[in-house]
Amino acid sequence: MSLRNRDLISILDLSRNEIEELFRKADQMNKFLQEKKTLNTLSGKIISLVFLEPSTRTMYSFQSATYRLGGKTLVFASKTTTSLAKGENIADTIRMMSAYSDLIVIRSPYDGTALYASMISSVPVINAGDGKHEHPTQALIDLYTIYKLKGRIDGLTIGVLGDLKYARTIASLLYGLSLFSPRKVYLISPGNLTLRESVRAKIDDLGLEYEEVRDIRQVIGELDILYVTRIQRERYPDPEEYERVKNAFKITEKLLENAKPGLKILHPLPKLDEIDKSIDNTDYAAYFYQASLGIPLRMALLASILG
Amino acid sequence: MSLRNRDLISILDLSRNEIEELFRKADQMNKFLQEKKTLNTLSGKIISLVFLEPSTRTMYSFQSATYRLGGKTLVFASKTTTSLAKGENIADTIRMMSAYSDLIVIRSPYDGTALYASMISSVPVINAGDGKHEHPTQALIDLYTIYKLKGRIDGLTIGVLGDLKYARTIASLLYGLSLFSPRKVYLISPGNLTLRESVRAKIDDLGLEYEEVRDIRQVIGELDILYVTRIQRERYPDPEEYERVKNAFKITEKLLENAKPGLKILHPLPKLDEIDKSIDNTDYAAYFYQASLGIPLRMALLASILG
Amino acid sequence: MSLRNRDLISILDLSRNEIEELFRKADQMNKFLQEKKTLNTLSGKIISLVFLEPSTRTMYSFQSATYRLGGKTLVFASKTTTSLAKGENIADTIRMMSAYSDLIVIRSPYDGTALYASMISSVPVINAGDGKHEHPTQALIDLYTIYKLKGRIDGLTIGVLGDLKYARTIASLLYGLSLFSPRKVYLISPGNLTLRESVRAKIDDLGLEYEEVRDIRQVIGELDILYVTRIQRERYPDPEEYERVKNAFKITEKLLENAKPGLKILHPLPKLDEIDKSIDNTDYAAYFYQASLGIPLRMALLASILG
Repeated sequence: MSLRNRDLISILDLSRNEIEELFRKADQMNKFLQEKKTLNTLSGKIISLVFLEPSTRTMYSFQSATYRLGGKTLVFASKTTTSLAKGENIADTIRMMSAYSDLIVIRSPYDGTALYASMISSVPVINAGDGKHEHPTQALIDLYTIYKLKGRIDGLTIGVLGDLKYARTIASLLYGLSLFSPRKVYLISPGNLTLRESVRAKIDDLGLEYEEVRDIRQVIGELDILYVTRIQRERYPDPEEYERVKNAFKITEKLLENAKPGLKILHPLPKLDEIDKSIDNTDYAAYFYQASLGIPLRMALLASILG
Repeated sequence: MSLRNRDLISILDLSRNEIEELFRKADQMNKFLQEKKTLNTLSGKIISLVFLEPSTRTMYSFQSATYRLGGKTLVFASKTTTSLAKGENIADTIRMMSAYSDLIVIRSPYDGTALYASMISSVPVINAGDGKHEHPTQALIDLYTIYKLKGRIDGLTIGVLGDLKYARTIASLLYGLSLFSPRKVYLISPGNLTLRESVRAKIDDLGLEYEEVRDIRQVIGELDILYVTRIQRERYPDPEEYERVKNAFKITEKLLENAKPGLKILHPLPKLDEIDKSIDNTDYAAYFYQASLGIPLRMALLASILG
Repeated sequence: MSLRNRDLISILDLSRNEIEELFRKADQMNKFLQEKKTLNTLSGKIISLVFLEPSTRTMYSFQSATYRLGGKTLVFASKTTTSLAKGENIADTIRMMSAYSDLIVIRSPYDGTALYASMISSVPVINAGDGKHEHPTQALIDLYTIYKLKGRIDGLTIGVLGDLKYARTIASLLYGLSLFSPRKVYLISPGNLTLRESVRAKIDDLGLEYEEVRDIRQVIGELDILYVTRIQRERYPDPEEYERVKNAFKITEKLLENAKPGLKILHPLPKLDEIDKSIDNTDYAAYFYQASLGIPLRMALLASILG
């Protein structure tokens, strides 16, 4: 496999073939996990987890994936990175951690940090989310989940709902989908949270088939997959406006009465109230399953780069 | 052994037989530690340490015990859990950590969190202290220490001194003692820090033989074991009242002049000035020995559940 | 080798022979690292990293070195140690961590903490910096770097520039140099940041050949090695005075026009603007190389004490 010693900054660093190869490797990893086999692929290896922005899910998922492969982790979690000092600090930190470890996983509140880190680091760098730019490993998990649920990505009708403007997971997911051939992608968001121009230009370039809608009820009957993200209160200075918008994009049992049979709902988690809690226990809910695929997918990725 | 894959929420989840079996296993672990043997019982296993309340002793002890058995740890230590957000956050955190690991050790400032976690988690849960409810592994260490010092728990006269109202270690210890047959347990506390009604009702039910006294000097000559806990300043709005109470329950060299030969003093640590520092170097002091038994006991427990 | 089970509090705990033996061992470790060999020297061993003062470089370096030898770490990093509580807390912490691990690495803002810890601990203690007292492992890395760059320490002319008053690295480095026979050591600092009397008295005793100068330009043509440390703004209540001093001791390309061929510049890092960034990419800059030697040197030290 050709991922050896490569960086992963954008999901577009990968080809469709490489992504599908990762899926097959993740299937293997899943099998090893089920059988409670002890792997030594990363025995003697050190993975640096440089988290300049608070995270739990992504960080622990990478840490657990490293452990499951027999590796160890250096955790650098800082909440004090100020924009003033960031240039100096990040360069120094990356130089240091790349001297101390075999691979760096980095998350940052600033767009472009992962690319910058990869230019400084002497070891491979994986982007675990940089500002509103990209979050490629989350998108790989999302695609892998769809692939596991439906056996394919091609030909599916996929709704992507919520804050499409600031969510880096959405950007990576849409780029990733463009490497496949979904029947159609519906972008479902309030008018003020539609796709950023830069992302729109890119998916236009990539030839992704999409349509924007303002109301989930218009398309719920067509969707094979509904990907939900949170609409953050901070985007709305006016609380009443926020409540109105939030409710218009909320996933309720009533809404799902019109769903296509076999619809699966994904969410990168953590979720608040954008999906009714009662849906958690239905066949629609695939988000906990999706979360559980984070480990085998990240194991596959780490093993492909360092194994 | 029957602890395999079981939770430990209350010490009453265990039978006397199971506790004694743990003691034997802890003896073995102690032997391995003395011989500096490397164990692989937890090789490939991941233990999550979810500490929603600051801790050092308990957390590092579980971490060291895991390492000594060849396992690895995910440390989730949060100081920001607010009561407002707790329901949502804890459920999410437990679901996440149980997907990423093989066992969860949890500490929380809220009564009942461990039980709640065990209902959500797909992997076994060990209660490392939840509010003022229980702290079963500390009680197991306490009982193991008594057993190692005296060869038995049955037939002993045991004093339990300090804040009996809020200390979760005391609740677990008394429940644990009720599974054995001590000659008598003296509960020694100021009037405002006596046992909570719920705990009292339970040990009445369990048939523990106990008597409440207000002054340690009344019973010091009878005790085989004196278990001391701190009386916290925060319980006393009036500083003078606090000083009076504190001194009336302080363990001094003078007090020990009347002690029964062979008396051993236990304390869950850390201690402030409730025991004179000069006593640390006497034969009475068993608290450092007690602390050292935390590792083998917790190794025995982890190995029994996951091994 | 005779370092087995010994503490390292001051670099003067070591003889010249022992230091040179460490260099040879570090060379071996470096070779293993190059060959990406997995070592098991510390397999089953636990190293406690007790950092009572924020650190990144030293802490991650010890952690990485431990991992590279197959060991595990307990990380105790506190920012809340107040001078009031320190006596009690540090003693308790050390007693606890020495029960839970095989070796303690300690950093503290207080002079003498490492020695104090070694008196309490039942396992070996390595000083990773205590107040303005000493930082012996940094000095070992410094000496090792000189040795690697020049093949020897004897006979060299070495400039030590910056804050010589408060920097613990400087104290340890000068003591370490006194075990060798450099031709001459120039101490280059502003008048208010010259060596403390206690350090001066010690290097006088040790017979180190040194001379104090107030301007780097006077000696730049003579130096084989220039060791630079930061001059901290906090030492200067008057900002103008600070700017004046800072610039007089800044390492610029212009200054280096008069340097002796083969001059190498060392710096314990992190650096701010005391060395022009443009120098980073010249042959003069040895500080990144120096930083990279931290891992093999600390591996050699840990392996010698515990291996």
